[in-house]
Amino acid sequence: MHQYLRVVSLVKKRGSKRAQELGRQVHSFLVRQGIKVIEETVPKDCDLVIVLGGDGTLLHIAESAYRADAPILGVNLGGLGYLTEIQIEEIEKVIMSAIRGVADLEKRMLLKVEVLDSECKSCATYCVLNEVAILRGSYGKVINIPTWAEGAFLTTYRGDGLIISTPTGSTAYNLSAGGPILHPRMEAMILTPVCPFALSARPIILPADSELEVCMEGFGSEGGVGASAQSPPFYVEIDGKLVHGVKSKYKLVVKRAPGHLKLISSPSSGYFKILREKLGWAGHLHQSDP
Amino acid sequence: MHQYLRVVSLVKKRGSKRAQELGRQVHSFLVRQGIKVIEETVPKDCDLVIVLGGDGTLLHIAESAYRADAPILGVNLGGLGYLTEIQIEEIEKVIMSAIRGVADLEKRMLLKVEVLDSECKSCATYCVLNEVAILRGSYGKVINIPTWAEGAFLTTYRGDGLIISTPTGSTAYNLSAGGPILHPRMEAMILTPVCPFALSARPIILPADSELEVCMEGFGSEGGVGASAQSPPFYVEIDGKLVHGVKSKYKLVVKRAPGHLKLISSPSSGYFKILREKLGWAGHLHQSDP
Amino acid sequence: MHQYLRVVSLVKKRGSKRAQELGRQVHSFLVRQGIKVIEETVPKDCDLVIVLGGDGTLLHIAESAYRADAPILGVNLGGLGYLTEIQIEEIEKVIMSAIRGVADLEKRMLLKVEVLDSECKSCATYCVLNEVAILRGSYGKVINIPTWAEGAFLTTYRGDGLIISTPTGSTAYNLSAGGPILHPRMEAMILTPVCPFALSARPIILPADSELEVCMEGFGSEGGVGASAQSPPFYVEIDGKLVHGVKSKYKLVVKRAPGHLKLISSPSSGYFKILREKLGWAGHLHQSDP
Amino acid sequence: MHQYLRVVSLVKKRGSKRAQELGRQVHSFLVRQGIKVIEETVPKDCDLVIVLGGDGTLLHIAESAYRADAPILGVNLGGLGYLTEIQIEEIEKVIMSAIRGVADLEKRMLLKVEVLDSECKSCATYCVLNEVAILRGSYGKVINIPTWAEGAFLTTYRGDGLIISTPTGSTAYNLSAGGPILHPRMEAMILTPVCPFALSARPIILPADSELEVCMEGFGSEGGVGASAQSPPFYVEIDGKLVHGVKSKYKLVVKRAPGHLKLISSPSSGYFKILREKLGWAGHLHQSDP
Repeated sequence: MHQYLRVVSLVKKRGSKRAQELGRQVHSFLVRQGIKVIEETVPKDCDLVIVLGGDGTLLHIAESAYRADAPILGVNLGGLGYLTEIQIEEIEKVIMSAIRGVADLEKRMLLKVEVLDSECKSCATYCVLNEVAILRGSYGKVINIPTWAEGAFLTTYRGDGLIISTPTGSTAYNLSAGGPILHPRMEAMILTPVCPFALSARPIILPADSELEVCMEGFGSEGGVGASAQSPPFYVEIDGKLVHGVKSKYKLVVKRAPGHLKLISSPSSGYFKILREKLGWAGHLHQSDP
Repeated sequence: MHQYLRVVSLVKKRGSKRAQELGRQVHSFLVRQGIKVIEETVPKDCDLVIVLGGDGTLLHIAESAYRADAPILGVNLGGLGYLTEIQIEEIEKVIMSAIRGVADLEKRMLLKVEVLDSECKSCATYCVLNEVAILRGSYGKVINIPTWAEGAFLTTYRGDGLIISTPTGSTAYNLSAGGPILHPRMEAMILTPVCPFALSARPIILPADSELEVCMEGFGSEGGVGASAQSPPFYVEIDGKLVHGVKSKYKLVVKRAPGHLKLISSPSSGYFKILREKLGWAGHLHQSDP
Repeated sequence: MHQYLRVVSLVKKRGSKRAQELGRQVHSFLVRQGIKVIEETVPKDCDLVIVLGGDGTLLHIAESAYRADAPILGVNLGGLGYLTEIQIEEIEKVIMSAIRGVADLEKRMLLKVEVLDSECKSCATYCVLNEVAILRGSYGKVINIPTWAEGAFLTTYRGDGLIISTPTGSTAYNLSAGGPILHPRMEAMILTPVCPFALSARPIILPADSELEVCMEGFGSEGGVGASAQSPPFYVEIDGKLVHGVKSKYKLVVKRAPGHLKLISSPSSGYFKILREKLGWAGHLHQSDP
Repeated sequence: MHQYLRVVSLVKKRGSKRAQELGRQVHSFLVRQGIKVIEETVPKDCDLVIVLGGDGTLLHIAESAYRADAPILGVNLGGLGYLTEIQIEEIEKVIMSAIRGVADLEKRMLLKVEVLDSECKSCATYCVLNEVAILRGSYGKVINIPTWAEGAFLTTYRGDGLIISTPTGSTAYNLSAGGPILHPRMEAMILTPVCPFALSARPIILPADSELEVCMEGFGSEGGVGASAQSPPFYVEIDGKLVHGVKSKYKLVVKRAPGHLKLISSPSSGYFKILREKLGWAGHLHQSDP
C-alpha cells in the first residue's frame, strides 16, 4: 500500500478541552501510522490539515491550507459544522481513507481581495473562503459603495453595506442578509446588499471569472461627515474578521483566487442533508395536517 | 377672525444657505402677521414649529415639539421629505391655514425608550419618532437579544440586530431591513430583525399598548469575548443617533409614549402618493408591454 | 352557580373517526351537565360552538358562529391548530370554565367582502376570518388589480395576485407570500402581493377602518386575451374556498365586519409560544456553537 | 467580403401593425442584400432569425431557432425587451454586422424538460429558455412537490408551487417569486418556491449539470381530494405557456439542454444597464438627500 500522507498539520480549537483531548488521541494515532505531526501551524510540505473544532477554527487556518495545497479534514466538535462535517466517530475511518488516498475531496473556490489605497497602490491581499463584507460603522448613516464588474458600472450600493460571498459562504452571512443558497460546487460570486436603502435591491450572482472593483466612498451627499481617514464611516470584514487600515477612497479588487481549497467530505453526510438538518432549510410550517 | 398662532419656533437645516434664506422670508412673513418668532429652539408656550430642511432636521426637533405639544410644519428643501411634506410654494398658504386653525393635522404615535442598568435602575429616557435599533459592533459576531412582550418571552433575536419601529418609521430603517409599510395612522410597534441568524425570522407587529423588554445580552455561547462593559459588542441608535452609555446586561423598556406628535400635512399630497412617488413603492418592472 | 351555557353546537371534522369518537364523549359530557347539544349546525340561540378537528373545520363554521355571536372552543386533533388551540386533554377543564363563564376569550376582527358586479350592484357578501385572495388562473399571464383605499388610489397590483388578510390570517396565506406576522389583537388589514411583477413591492398594513375597493380588471395591456366573462383570468378565494361567479369588471369592497369572532383560548398556551413552537418562527440556524 | 447570411427567418409579433410595417421594410432590405427571407417559420438551414416584437414573440420562436442553431436578432417594439434588446434605430447597423459575421453573440443555456408518466414512460420533451413552473390550481390547497437533485433527495416543496429557472429566466417569473438575479453568462439552475408553506424556504442554485427529478404528487396528507387524473391539483407552465396532459404521479426530469441559444446583443446596451434602466434594479429610495 502506497502511503499518501507523510506530514499532517493538527489544528485544535483554542480554549477547548475537548479539542485538546481529542488532539492527543489523533496525534498518537497518526504517529503510530508513521506520520509526522506538526501542531497548530501548516508547513509548506504538509499533506493534510486536520481541524478539531468548528467552522471558526477551520476559517482561521483555511488560507494556510490553501497556500500549502493541503486538503482539510474538519472534525465537528458539537456545533453547527457546515465546513467541519466529519463526525468524531468517523475520524479514524476518514483518516485511514486519506492515508490510502481514497478520501472524498470537495473543491471549493476562493476569492482574492486586493486592497488598493487612494493612489491605487496595492496595500494588502486576502484569501476569502466565505465572504468579504463592507459595512457601515455606528454613525447612523447609510454608506455608498460604487461597484464595477468586468469594467462596467454595476450600481452604487447604498445602505448598511454589501456582502460579496463565495458559494461556500452562501450559507453564512449572505443567508442572514437574504441571499440565496449556492451549491458549493458552483463557481460564482454573490453580491448581496445589507439593509439596502432601496426597495428594488436584490442579490445578483456573477460568474466566478468576473473582476469586481468596489469603492470605499463613504457617506453620500453629506460629503463625509465623520468620514475622516482616521475613522472611516465603514469597516471591512473578511470571513468574520475585521480588516484594519482600509480608509475612505480606497478600493477593493475582488476576483477568483487560482485553484481551490480542498475539503475532505464525510462519507455519511451529503450537502442537501446538511441544508435540511443543520440549516433547517425548507422546513415545513407543520409536521402534519389534521 | 381668531388668531390661533402667537408664538412660532423656526428651525432651519444647519449649514444650508437655502434654509437660511427661506428662513429670513418666513420670519418676516410671520412678524407681519403679528406672530412672535423664536429661532432654533422650541419654547414651552410654542404654538407651531416650522422646520425648513429635511427629515433629519425634523427628527432632531421632534421631541421638543412633542413636549411642547406644538404641531410641526415641515418644509421640504429638495430631498426626500416623508415627514417634511410641505413644498416651498405651499408655505404661505399652509401657514395661513395654521393661523386660522384650519390646517390638516396628522397625529403620529411615538415610542418611549427607558434604559435600565444592570441593576434595573433607570438611566435615561428617550422619545422615538422613527425607530430604536440595537446593532452589533465591528466584532464579526452575531449578538443575542432576548426579548419579552407583555411579560411573555417573545424570542431571542440573534444576528446583526433588531429594529423596533413606529408606523412613521416603517418607511425608514425598518424598510431597509425588509419590514412592511404601516400606515402612519396605525397604532403599533414593528419588530424587524437585522440580518437574522435564522431562516425563519419574519417581522412581527404588536399592538401599540404592548410593553417590550429588550436585553442587551451581548454575545451568545462564547460567553462574551470582547463584551466588556467598556466596549460592549453592540450599540443602540435612536432615530439614527448613537445612544451613549448602554452597556452589557442593560435593558431597554420600550412602550408607547402618551399623546401624539402632530404634523401639518400638505393639502396637495397624500400618503399613498408619497409612497408611490417618493419611495417608488410597487412600481412596475415595465412601463408597458409590447 | 349560574349556568352560562344552555345550547352548545358540536361540529366535527368530516371523515375523521377520531373526531366522531371524541364527539360522542363530548356530547355525553355536555348532556350530563344539562346542556342541549346541536350537532353540525349553529342555531341562533347557540351559546358556544365546540369544533373538533383542525383549522379547516373551524374556518368552515366561523361565519355561523360569528352571526350567532357564539364563542368557538376549537379542539386540535393532531395537526397545526393555530385557531384550534385547545388540546384534547384540556377539553373537560375548558368546557367547565365556559360553563362557569370564566373561560378566556380572544376577540378576532373579521373582514366583510362585498362583491359588486360591473354595474356596481351588490351580488354577494362574505365574512373573512383569514384572508381574501385574488389570484391569476393558469393563463401564464400576470393580472392587474387596481386598488383604492379610503377613496384614494393605492396602486395597481400586477403579478400573480393580491392577498388581503386579517391579523388572524397573517400566519396563514399571507405568511407564505412573504407578509409579516400581526398579533391577533391588532385591528388592521394587510395587503400582500403574490409574485408581484415589480421589484419594489412590499406588504402594506392599513387601519382596520379603511375601506378598500379592489377591481377585477383582468389582463393589462393585452386587452383581455382569455378574459371573457365565462372564464375570467383570475379567481377569488376566501379563507381557502373558491368564490364562484366573480367576473371581469367586478369589484370587491373590503371593510371591517362589525363586532368580533370570539375564540376560547387555551390556558396552557400563549400566542408567542404558538409562533415559536408551531410555526418555527425565529428559530436559530444552530442549536449551539462549538 | 464574405457573406455569412444566406437564409433569414423573419418573425413578427402577431396582431401588431407596427411589426407588420417594420417587417416589410426589413424584408426589402434583406432582399436587396441578396438574402433569402422566410416569414414566420424557421427552416433548418436558417442562418439568422429576426424577431420584431417583444420577449413573448422571441420566447415563442426560441426553440425553433435553437434547433436550427440560428442566432436570434430580437428587435424591441416599445415594451420591456430583456431578450429583444436591439432598438429600432439600430436594426440596419446590427443586420449589417450579422451579414459581415461581426455581430456580438451571447450564448444562453437552455433547460430540457422531459415529462414521464406514472409508469416512467417518456411522454414529451420541451426546451426552456426562461423557466418551468409547477403551480397549484384553484383548489385552495397547497401542493407537495418532492424533488431530487443528482439522485439525492432535495426536499418536498410545499406551497403554491416551484419555479425552475435558467439564468436568462432569473429576471422573469423567478424575480417575482423572490429569486435572485443571475448573470446570463452563468450556467446554473435556480429553484425558487412560490408562496412556500414554510418560513425557512429560500431559493437554491445548482450547477447546470445537475439533473432534477420533480414529482407531481398532488395534495399532501389529505390524500388527493380533487386530485383526479382528469383535473390534477396542479398545472405546469413552460416559458409562460400551459403544458397539457401532465397528471398526478407524473414526473418532470429537468436537465441542461446541449449547446446554447445564441442572441445577438445590442452594441449600445449592456447587461447591467438593462438591469438598472429596464428593471429598476437597486434604484435608490431617494434621488438625493436634502
